[in-house]
Amino acid sequence: MSTPGPQRARSAAAKQQRERAILDAARTLGTERSVREVTLTDIAAAVGMHKSAMLRYFETREQIFLALTAEGWEDWSAALRARLGGLADGDSGIDADTVAAVIARSLVARPFFCDLLAQAPLNLERNVSLDSVYEFKTVVLGEVASVAVELCRILAISERSAIDVISTATSMAGALLQMAAPGTRLRTLYESHPELAHALVDVEPQLTRILTALLAGLRATATPTPPSAQA
Amino acid sequence: MSTPGPQRARSAAAKQQRERAILDAARTLGTERSVREVTLTDIAAAVGMHKSAMLRYFETREQIFLALTAEGWEDWSAALRARLGGLADGDSGIDADTVAAVIARSLVARPFFCDLLAQAPLNLERNVSLDSVYEFKTVVLGEVASVAVELCRILAISERSAIDVISTATSMAGALLQMAAPGTRLRTLYESHPELAHALVDVEPQLTRILTALLAGLRATATPTPPSAQA
Repeated sequence: MSTPGPQRARSAAAKQQRERAILDAARTLGTERSVREVTLTDIAAAVGMHKSAMLRYFETREQIFLALTAEGWEDWSAALRARLGGLADGDSGIDADTVAAVIARSLVARPFFCDLLAQAPLNLERNVSLDSVYEFKTVVLGEVASVAVELCRILAISERSAIDVISTATSMAGALLQMAAPGTRLRTLYESHPELAHALVDVEPQLTRILTALLAGLRATATPTPPSAQA
Repeated sequence: MSTPGPQRARSAAAKQQRERAILDAARTLGTERSVREVTLTDIAAAVGMHKSAMLRYFETREQIFLALTAEGWEDWSAALRARLGGLADGDSGIDADTVAAVIARSLVARPFFCDLLAQAPLNLERNVSLDSVYEFKTVVLGEVASVAVELCRILAISERSAIDVISTATSMAGALLQMAAPGTRLRTLYESHPELAHALVDVEPQLTRILTALLAGLRATATPTPPSAQA
């Protein structure tokens, strides 16, 4: 009783494949340009579907990018934890600036994720269903908790401090990249007017400086955490 | 040869009055709702003008809000400098947490400004002419420099560190307020699901903690600045 042809796209596996194709097309377009410049029509064209057909898979343009933001958190969290795990074996003698540089690098190396980090609370979360927000927040909170465990372990800071570090790192990476505005006419304006030199943001060194000071300050005031926090 | 009636609106003073009325209407609407929810049509209706007539005063909706962001910087900078000036008379014995609390309070007390701080680099600066961006950046850089002088003086940190503090304070205030999403269905979602408790952002204490650690860390690594920096 199998129905060949287009009907097969209704099967779960085919549906997943379609969703993947839409997400991949949105990621490619968002990486080439910037998230703000990619419309639903652009994504539909890239994936070879009608816009109306695409809306059977995703509620809105914003839901597509919010799903990519969740994937970005999973990817960033795994890469950062692997990198931090290689740095220290449970001793707390590691420098704040080393950890800060690793965190900053991990974010700057992912400009599309940083773009999404800035867009998510302002634009993406506001144009999707509450179910989608719930699903998104659940993924993000899980990844924040995993990264926090690693930061608590190597820096001997509290979970709350670790969460403050993650909030600052991800929000500042998003904000600084928007201000740096690489490849835009804004960037050209700043570069061509010496009196606007201070508007020229260089993301990685500034983020590294901010995180270094933040980590040093948090460690200076940290109360020792029980070994159970290092599980 | 004076021409009475509507023609008089062409005089410079009347033009300024009209611009002021438009800005005030946009500020009132943006404060009542949020910046993202205010359209050009809303502002035109509130000020009792046709949309097309309003566009003789401002290029776009975004230019109106960018002008209000510049005014927000001037207001915040003046208030913060007055408050910091009252705190310390040039001695550097002042606590990082006292200064952090003053900065955080000055921002949290201005939710409309914080909303604009988040919207500016993502949305507002991208939908105006380069002349408008130039004018905006000139105001912002001037206010950043003024606040930096005050922070250098009372904390004995470098100008670059002071600028990092201002960047972090303003960007995090903007980002945290968006994540806190007060008065929205998102906030209700977080409050009604215990498993999303960590998504509930409480802006003032979190911003105060982050700035306290940042200031403490910057001071710990500060090289003494010459007295000329205190001018």
